[in-house]
Amino acid sequence: MNSPIAKYIAEFIGAFFLVLTIGCTVIPGAPGVIAPLAIAAILMTMIYAFGHISGGHFNPGVTVGAMVRGKCPPKDAAAYIVAQLGGAALAALVVGVLVGYPQAAMAIKDVKAALLAEFLFSFALVSVVLHVATAKGNAGNSFFGVAIAAVVLAGAFAVGGVSGGAFNSAVALGIGMMKMVAFNDLWIHVVANLSAGAVAGLLFRAMMPDDK
Amino acid sequence: MNSPIAKYIAEFIGAFFLVLTIGCTVIPGAPGVIAPLAIAAILMTMIYAFGHISGGHFNPGVTVGAMVRGKCPPKDAAAYIVAQLGGAALAALVVGVLVGYPQAAMAIKDVKAALLAEFLFSFALVSVVLHVATAKGNAGNSFFGVAIAAVVLAGAFAVGGVSGGAFNSAVALGIGMMKMVAFNDLWIHVVANLSAGAVAGLLFRAMMPDDK
Amino acid sequence: MNSPIAKYIAEFIGAFFLVLTIGCTVIPGAPGVIAPLAIAAILMTMIYAFGHISGGHFNPGVTVGAMVRGKCPPKDAAAYIVAQLGGAALAALVVGVLVGYPQAAMAIKDVKAALLAEFLFSFALVSVVLHVATAKGNAGNSFFGVAIAAVVLAGAFAVGGVSGGAFNSAVALGIGMMKMVAFNDLWIHVVANLSAGAVAGLLFRAMMPDDK
Amino acid sequence: MNSPIAKYIAEFIGAFFLVLTIGCTVIPGAPGVIAPLAIAAILMTMIYAFGHISGGHFNPGVTVGAMVRGKCPPKDAAAYIVAQLGGAALAALVVGVLVGYPQAAMAIKDVKAALLAEFLFSFALVSVVLHVATAKGNAGNSFFGVAIAAVVLAGAFAVGGVSGGAFNSAVALGIGMMKMVAFNDLWIHVVANLSAGAVAGLLFRAMMPDDK
Repeated sequence: MNSPIAKYIAEFIGAFFLVLTIGCTVIPGAPGVIAPLAIAAILMTMIYAFGHISGGHFNPGVTVGAMVRGKCPPKDAAAYIVAQLGGAALAALVVGVLVGYPQAAMAIKDVKAALLAEFLFSFALVSVVLHVATAKGNAGNSFFGVAIAAVVLAGAFAVGGVSGGAFNSAVALGIGMMKMVAFNDLWIHVVANLSAGAVAGLLFRAMMPDDK
Repeated sequence: MNSPIAKYIAEFIGAFFLVLTIGCTVIPGAPGVIAPLAIAAILMTMIYAFGHISGGHFNPGVTVGAMVRGKCPPKDAAAYIVAQLGGAALAALVVGVLVGYPQAAMAIKDVKAALLAEFLFSFALVSVVLHVATAKGNAGNSFFGVAIAAVVLAGAFAVGGVSGGAFNSAVALGIGMMKMVAFNDLWIHVVANLSAGAVAGLLFRAMMPDDK
Repeated sequence: MNSPIAKYIAEFIGAFFLVLTIGCTVIPGAPGVIAPLAIAAILMTMIYAFGHISGGHFNPGVTVGAMVRGKCPPKDAAAYIVAQLGGAALAALVVGVLVGYPQAAMAIKDVKAALLAEFLFSFALVSVVLHVATAKGNAGNSFFGVAIAAVVLAGAFAVGGVSGGAFNSAVALGIGMMKMVAFNDLWIHVVANLSAGAVAGLLFRAMMPDDK
Repeated sequence: MNSPIAKYIAEFIGAFFLVLTIGCTVIPGAPGVIAPLAIAAILMTMIYAFGHISGGHFNPGVTVGAMVRGKCPPKDAAAYIVAQLGGAALAALVVGVLVGYPQAAMAIKDVKAALLAEFLFSFALVSVVLHVATAKGNAGNSFFGVAIAAVVLAGAFAVGGVSGGAFNSAVALGIGMMKMVAFNDLWIHVVANLSAGAVAGLLFRAMMPDDK
């Protein structure tokens, strides 16, 4: 058996390295290929390393989706989200020591488009997680981490310029603390992420009624 | 058992996110590394997420190839293609909201070369799908999504400048609606995609007569 | 059972798409990220698609290595190499139709360095193939295609500027026909590729005497 | 059974190609996408090729972590590190023949930040190795090489500009010999790598007390 707190440590470490990598590679307003590749890579590796312990969420929207789908007890979900936010916050502080924060936050010009972009790719992300990591039809696969990272990579390239491309409420906290996105705009990412997680969970149940 | 319409929803969602990502990343006439990477990534993740439900075609040429190879009943094939076109069309509309459409469509200078390019990489794509996702000798593998995405990545880099690099009739509808390729040119992609799918299916049967 | 010529068709198609992708993406003397990514992607996908039929060599050096290691009968090896060269040659012709040939071949400035570079990465490539695709300790894995493609990606980035980065005698024929490398220089790639394949096969046997 | 020295040869070859690729792709002070991709690719392929023989460490910090976690006898650990350093040193010499050494070493401006950066990503790297390659819950997976390479890719992008991004004491020797980093600065990489390996091993034991 694992240590009883191993899964919370896993969620903390995963969110920490995810936000650390974001903070060290993203330059707001200057999209490129490096930050999305780096972010997808660290997310993938953390999922593969810690998925066997905690499920490898590192993302409150994923935790909500897993709860709705019936694969994460509410008590665990709350502790997971606390661990994710804690890891993200610590990483934001460490980024200040390592490379400092950007001069200016990204401007979100169109709130509706940003909300839609964050919702759509959070929905895709959580749907992918539920199908590759919890569906019976995909049991025992080795691709779950690559698949989950790839949707973040695609989303960052596709709508990074629209919304910042967080798709993750813990990342939203991190990029807010690191002054990459204005705190006033972060409700966009949080609302979209959590509601998309719930919708993805409900759709999974509707599509796969016998996969419990 | 899955919901009886789960597989059509899966094809709809997969084609939706594929065309959404194309619309948000491709700049006609300005090839680069980002769009092909993003497109390959979203295709891969959708295949891994929904392959266990629908086979993860998202592409009428793949559906035709699977039908010819004997792994998709004609009735399903028709419904799949409707779902793929529907997802592609909705995505094209959403791209208009998120980032708008490009100023000018890509010019296809040499129709014969474009037809050959689309045929060759559609043939490669459908052949890869049939071998990695339906051949007995590859049963139970975890690489099918990476393999299928990689042929699209290679094709987009290799002949994106020749034909646009669709290799997919549903994508053709999407890029037509998004004004990336002129509607008058789309027959190239559709003819090449569907005929290549059929040829790939026939070749599979000829090479693997006992794999039914 | 497969068709008796299925494995030769597989080697032909794989070498064809490999050289086609090379011809459409490589610009001699202008290294970049696109050509190596495209080449690694097409190699990977062809290995995954056709590995279950022919082993997925597409490379005379790999065929020599497999023969030395005892996993490819000499008669098959000869037919494989013919199929590989045929696929490469046809692709070189098709590239002329699709995108034309470059103005100037790459200059190889230092023959000794080029020979060493081609030998080292051909050795790495064939060793990787033998270990990931034929060693008992790696039986049943899903990573063989990614692993083999990655060594070509690394080699192209590392020594593409030194030798052209062929690591494959069939590719050498193709890039010679496409005027990317002068025919007079191709002995470098062929000698290095075939001798490295033999050395890798011998080292495998020495390291793994009981894996037959 | 393998040859008794097969595992040391494996560690030597893996470290050799890792440092060879670093030496041929890294330009100190000019970060980009090519060197990290090439380095991650060669690391991945060497892990997949030789992991079944030696575990695929190629990194003294990984060897220390595996020893602390109980998966590498101290005698083997010493021989592994000697093999890794030997492979790295030979590669550094070969790089001199192939492409020469850079004009100027990278300047490490902030020693504390560099030490922290090297420690954090060495810790992530060794933790990932221990979880994906030695944890019972991940037995038999095909993703271990991709996962391990991805953390190096992310780390190189994230903190390559802070510390050089070695995360590996054998690589430190190599980049010192190749004049990419001043020899006076290499203690940073060695201290961080070895201590992070030990910490990762201890944390693994604390989190997974029953996985021995």
